[in-house]
Amino acid sequence: MMALLAVCTAAQAQESATTNITGKEYPKVNPDRTVIFKVDAPQARTVAVDLGGRHQMTRNAQGQWEVTTPPIVPGFHYYSLIIDGVSVSDPNSKPFFGSGKMMSGIEIPEVCVDYYLDKDVPHGEIRVQRYWSDLTQSWRVCRVYVPAGYDTDLDARYPVLYLLHGAGEDETGWSEQGLMYNIMDNLIDEGSAVPMIVVMDHGVATIPGARSSGMFDFTSYEKVVIEELIPMIDSRYRTLPDRLHRGICGLSLGGFQSFTIAMDNRDKFAWLGGFSGSGKGPGTAADLYDKSMNDDFKLIFISTGTKESPQMYATVKNFHDILAAAGVRHIFFQSAGTDHEWLTWRRSLYRFVPLLFK
Amino acid sequence: MMALLAVCTAAQAQESATTNITGKEYPKVNPDRTVIFKVDAPQARTVAVDLGGRHQMTRNAQGQWEVTTPPIVPGFHYYSLIIDGVSVSDPNSKPFFGSGKMMSGIEIPEVCVDYYLDKDVPHGEIRVQRYWSDLTQSWRVCRVYVPAGYDTDLDARYPVLYLLHGAGEDETGWSEQGLMYNIMDNLIDEGSAVPMIVVMDHGVATIPGARSSGMFDFTSYEKVVIEELIPMIDSRYRTLPDRLHRGICGLSLGGFQSFTIAMDNRDKFAWLGGFSGSGKGPGTAADLYDKSMNDDFKLIFISTGTKESPQMYATVKNFHDILAAAGVRHIFFQSAGTDHEWLTWRRSLYRFVPLLFK
Repeated sequence: MMALLAVCTAAQAQESATTNITGKEYPKVNPDRTVIFKVDAPQARTVAVDLGGRHQMTRNAQGQWEVTTPPIVPGFHYYSLIIDGVSVSDPNSKPFFGSGKMMSGIEIPEVCVDYYLDKDVPHGEIRVQRYWSDLTQSWRVCRVYVPAGYDTDLDARYPVLYLLHGAGEDETGWSEQGLMYNIMDNLIDEGSAVPMIVVMDHGVATIPGARSSGMFDFTSYEKVVIEELIPMIDSRYRTLPDRLHRGICGLSLGGFQSFTIAMDNRDKFAWLGGFSGSGKGPGTAADLYDKSMNDDFKLIFISTGTKESPQMYATVKNFHDILAAAGVRHIFFQSAGTDHEWLTWRRSLYRFVPLLFK
Repeated sequence: MMALLAVCTAAQAQESATTNITGKEYPKVNPDRTVIFKVDAPQARTVAVDLGGRHQMTRNAQGQWEVTTPPIVPGFHYYSLIIDGVSVSDPNSKPFFGSGKMMSGIEIPEVCVDYYLDKDVPHGEIRVQRYWSDLTQSWRVCRVYVPAGYDTDLDARYPVLYLLHGAGEDETGWSEQGLMYNIMDNLIDEGSAVPMIVVMDHGVATIPGARSSGMFDFTSYEKVVIEELIPMIDSRYRTLPDRLHRGICGLSLGGFQSFTIAMDNRDKFAWLGGFSGSGKGPGTAADLYDKSMNDDFKLIFISTGTKESPQMYATVKNFHDILAAAGVRHIFFQSAGTDHEWLTWRRSLYRFVPLLFK
């Protein structure tokens, strides 16, 4: 039992955040999950960190601005520096696309949790796939995860999960912030998940002359997914191109898109999920949902973080109640202590993927 | 995002251990998972805590013995006090049956993890079931978990999981140390697991005149399970009494028992698991395992903690390699950073149960 004291050392020493630019010492995470930020801004009059509230920094003896935050929830969080009132990115942090711009991000480690970490297992690969879209008259881009062995076992064909990002994010979110490639590699190696292709598209499409546009134009994006994205994937990858081997899910806005697209195209998707966002948009008419979904879908999975804002939490909880009242079989997973953030979505993916295509 | 700072408060203040006798202040767990022990032993010359190694206590100003340990891995751990060289239980701790005696135990909380905690969901119930055994000529006892609604939905019949404890433990281990009733209640409420009955028997049987006896007498215990326990459960509970609705798994010694019993009785079990112990005993002949297991078992699940002793880890890892080489489909789950201890087994049950009876 001596091992007890040796394990989980990751969280027992102060460490530079894994989200820092290589070689940058700060921000540093303490074992109690407080975070020390240091910023060189000799001319600045005020400097603060915006991470779950504002934390004013003070100029230390070396002339650097510094602050130690209260304990931060484990997982990935976006943050900004506020220099003389101006919100900017931290030059020490790798950049992550969120809220429609590049943001700073910090990873707070979890003790004894490694399902989203890089382990010594066979690794799949993320491919950046460009495709021409006649509908939008533009080149579009998606990221495609192919499992380990895709290029060696050339007779194998795979089921496909379409995995959508949230509002203000893009096709890079699930890999850069979500670390989905580690989650997939680890679940597949362990035998919990069947090898599958995961398609992460850019979830916004603007069709010239369409009635609406922008990220809430679900109709245009649905046309691109059904008429262009799926045919492109099925032609360029070794897929099993039928509904029983095709799933769709997404986070937040992507969850609403997933339900909208799958409910409209039951002949194309048998596996459906929405993380922190589910149903055909908030306040959907309850009578859209009935027992026919039990026949059309092999799995319906919805989730939320228990610490999401009351409004966010309510949309998922209410949808859970609607499905339950309508007698629609589904899983309602609640991520303990997490907000509308990436740890909720990593945990949801980790719970969702082992149930797929079985 | 202010919520960030408010969540997961459980681990952000020094707290009396949940495993303490109600009202006892010490041991106390700090946010960094160091533990403060205090003991009143005015006459003692030396006092130590044995918890992942020995920690000598010192007499404080109030004449109490006190020590703060290094950070301890989350989850449940047995411990003892060593007073003047004598190993005793801590009167402040609830007693737990382990290592063949009542031990003290301490629960180290995990941040933002609640799958094994008591939540506001419908609760099943643990029933203490006594049964007469002709084979052993004795009254035996098992604990039976029945899911919420068992007594109201009287037409429902349920699949059954036989869940075995480890060496030196007894039929109370999975409920008292493992908190299995919370894990089951939470998974069933969320929709991840089908409602099921879970039978936790006392995994030792001594048959008069049998060639061997004691906990390593698998043959005698197997006879009790097949000839007495299963018929008793199927007669007294509303079960689905066939192999497709019956599973067996256990931890450590119970894992070896599970594989032994299920491999010998493939007509009775279709779902099989071994946590930190799997296969028909360590060093099993590899040729016992072949592709026929893919037809006979719907699921084979093995697991281990990544920080178990090299020998413990090797038995499971080697068995994983044996199954892989034999082409036997199985899941190999590794619990990050945990030893041969209850957090490994809670996590294993949490991963195993959602896959059952589907």
